[in-house]
Amino acid sequence: MVEMKVTPWTVEGEIDYKKLIKQFGTAPLTDKLIDEIKKHTGELHLMLRRKLFFSHRDLDWLLSKYDSGESFVLYTGRGPSGHTHIGHLVPWIFTKWLQDKFDAELYFQLTDDEKFLMNRQLSLDDTQKFAQENVLDIIAVGFDPKKTKIFFDTSYAKTLYKIAVRVAKLTTFSTAKAVFGFNNSTNIGMAFFPSMQAAPCFLPSELAGKKVPVLIPAAIDQDPYWRISRDVAERLGYYKPAQIHSMFLPGLQGPGSKMSASKPNTAIFTTDSLDVAEKKVMGAFTGGRGSLKEQREKGGNPNICTVYQYMYYIFEPSDEKIKQMREDCKAGRVTCGECKQRLAKYVIAFLKEHQKRRKNAKKNIDKFLVKD
Amino acid sequence: MVEMKVTPWTVEGEIDYKKLIKQFGTAPLTDKLIDEIKKHTGELHLMLRRKLFFSHRDLDWLLSKYDSGESFVLYTGRGPSGHTHIGHLVPWIFTKWLQDKFDAELYFQLTDDEKFLMNRQLSLDDTQKFAQENVLDIIAVGFDPKKTKIFFDTSYAKTLYKIAVRVAKLTTFSTAKAVFGFNNSTNIGMAFFPSMQAAPCFLPSELAGKKVPVLIPAAIDQDPYWRISRDVAERLGYYKPAQIHSMFLPGLQGPGSKMSASKPNTAIFTTDSLDVAEKKVMGAFTGGRGSLKEQREKGGNPNICTVYQYMYYIFEPSDEKIKQMREDCKAGRVTCGECKQRLAKYVIAFLKEHQKRRKNAKKNIDKFLVKD
Repeated sequence: MVEMKVTPWTVEGEIDYKKLIKQFGTAPLTDKLIDEIKKHTGELHLMLRRKLFFSHRDLDWLLSKYDSGESFVLYTGRGPSGHTHIGHLVPWIFTKWLQDKFDAELYFQLTDDEKFLMNRQLSLDDTQKFAQENVLDIIAVGFDPKKTKIFFDTSYAKTLYKIAVRVAKLTTFSTAKAVFGFNNSTNIGMAFFPSMQAAPCFLPSELAGKKVPVLIPAAIDQDPYWRISRDVAERLGYYKPAQIHSMFLPGLQGPGSKMSASKPNTAIFTTDSLDVAEKKVMGAFTGGRGSLKEQREKGGNPNICTVYQYMYYIFEPSDEKIKQMREDCKAGRVTCGECKQRLAKYVIAFLKEHQKRRKNAKKNIDKFLVKD
Repeated sequence: MVEMKVTPWTVEGEIDYKKLIKQFGTAPLTDKLIDEIKKHTGELHLMLRRKLFFSHRDLDWLLSKYDSGESFVLYTGRGPSGHTHIGHLVPWIFTKWLQDKFDAELYFQLTDDEKFLMNRQLSLDDTQKFAQENVLDIIAVGFDPKKTKIFFDTSYAKTLYKIAVRVAKLTTFSTAKAVFGFNNSTNIGMAFFPSMQAAPCFLPSELAGKKVPVLIPAAIDQDPYWRISRDVAERLGYYKPAQIHSMFLPGLQGPGSKMSASKPNTAIFTTDSLDVAEKKVMGAFTGGRGSLKEQREKGGNPNICTVYQYMYYIFEPSDEKIKQMREDCKAGRVTCGECKQRLAKYVIAFLKEHQKRRKNAKKNIDKFLVKD
């Protein structure tokens, strides 16, 4: 078994999320805290109910600020190194829900600089083109154009750089080494980049001329970046950004596989045709048995089943139905083919709608994009 | 004797310029090359005749490009960590001469980011304010507004950052360590900054959409920055920037002293009143003897005399008069007081004119400043 390794650029091995909470020093998202959220939102998004979001920093503090009348700003992002797949959409869908429920502004950063600096084979043109593509998917998620600012780092660098240098002045190369595993072969652009990713944590305060609480919904691999932000926040006169962390969804090849643009069968891309998407679902890894007979006798294993996970964390809104699906699987009452067809239906319906909105997004880009 | 140390942030000890040429790996500015310049300019600026500019990289190549019809762009800069003194003006005056003689465009960078990142006690507001002050002095030197672009890094960061990340991707922290003496305690802003100073070397080519030769006139302590630029230039599809390097003028307290904003008596600032400037000149270190009698008998030593150096490198245009001054000093025919009065006259006339132009510059700033 590959050892667990989680950094902003590598997710490897079987992920032990409890261990990760300890290792990163974050806090588990407790039922009590989820109840606190529910007090404000009335209902709970399935990603909360089912704990795809499982960890946080200062979310309790953020809610108490909200209680006392200080509204917060959401901040999330995307590293544009390829096309968008469904895994990318997961935190964005949740972020939209937060925006709606808390009537919150959202800052959405596209780190075209980072992906260029990190990947030998990508030019700045490449990452900017991917960012142009990705932005359509972001808009298609349905964010409120009046409350959402999307920006590319290279197009908003004047605004970001002024904040980034203040973060950078307080961050030594030693610290960056310890937090990100940088070494002397790291290029000086990557060495600086954590400051550019920190900048949007503080931008809302800069623009408002007062301290503004910020909440970052993102996969937990991004946490090291926010450690830098939190480290310098108070010395720069800002609040530390609060965070809510999601798990990673596995690739379609099952546990330990990764959704990856370089291996198209591992993920459903938002630009996949409906046919291709269906085929990918029908080829997904499941927890089924070797034969139908065995399946009927012994039942399947939903814990390692990609199809089940996609239904559980993304597509099946009914808690009752998902429970039934699990039980039917374990009892051998349902075949993998049937579950795949069920997921395929959801995926196709979702993609159809997303692709329509994505097409529509092209004419709305200007309502969302901010630049210097 | 303090050991010689020359970096972009420290100039210490008695400077051995021949040794510096070897140490930095630059080329001496030979009489032959100076003659080449004269072929184009008709006459020679006193800073060339008297070799205040003493070293170069690829100046011969640049002139041959010019010969074959490729005009070049000038690039120089200022780190705005304080008010402007006469020492700062020296390379700018020479740059203006180059602009006039070669009808060259000039890019003038104010590194408000660098000075903020380097100096614990300076805020970004501080360095931006100094930059606002310094820009008046730059304009007062008389650059052609139609051919001169002045910019602050923080106001032009969007343009610069796009080029800087391409430089940064090719520059490891190891290289930056070796070139600048950075270490693990260096903040990540300074680690990145060499890319921001490299960017204007390539900006003319970016804007023109073709390779443009660039010449950088600057004091030799800035050379490490251009080593980075030259290192990456060809891989990025640009020419290596050529350079012409000046010596350092000593502070008014004599050899080994430095003109410094924190010690006002070491330098004449452009904002000094004429009275104050005169007093500073009259208090300058000279190569005179302990008594008038001894001076008459043994003569003075112009080699260590600040007054002589200021006359030689900046103020006395007549080669004949400066030769006479030197001989009169060595023969004891002139007293230090007399020489000081002569220098004071020049300084006062210069300051009067500069301050008039500086005042005038305020209304012309927009003709020079470029920003994103």
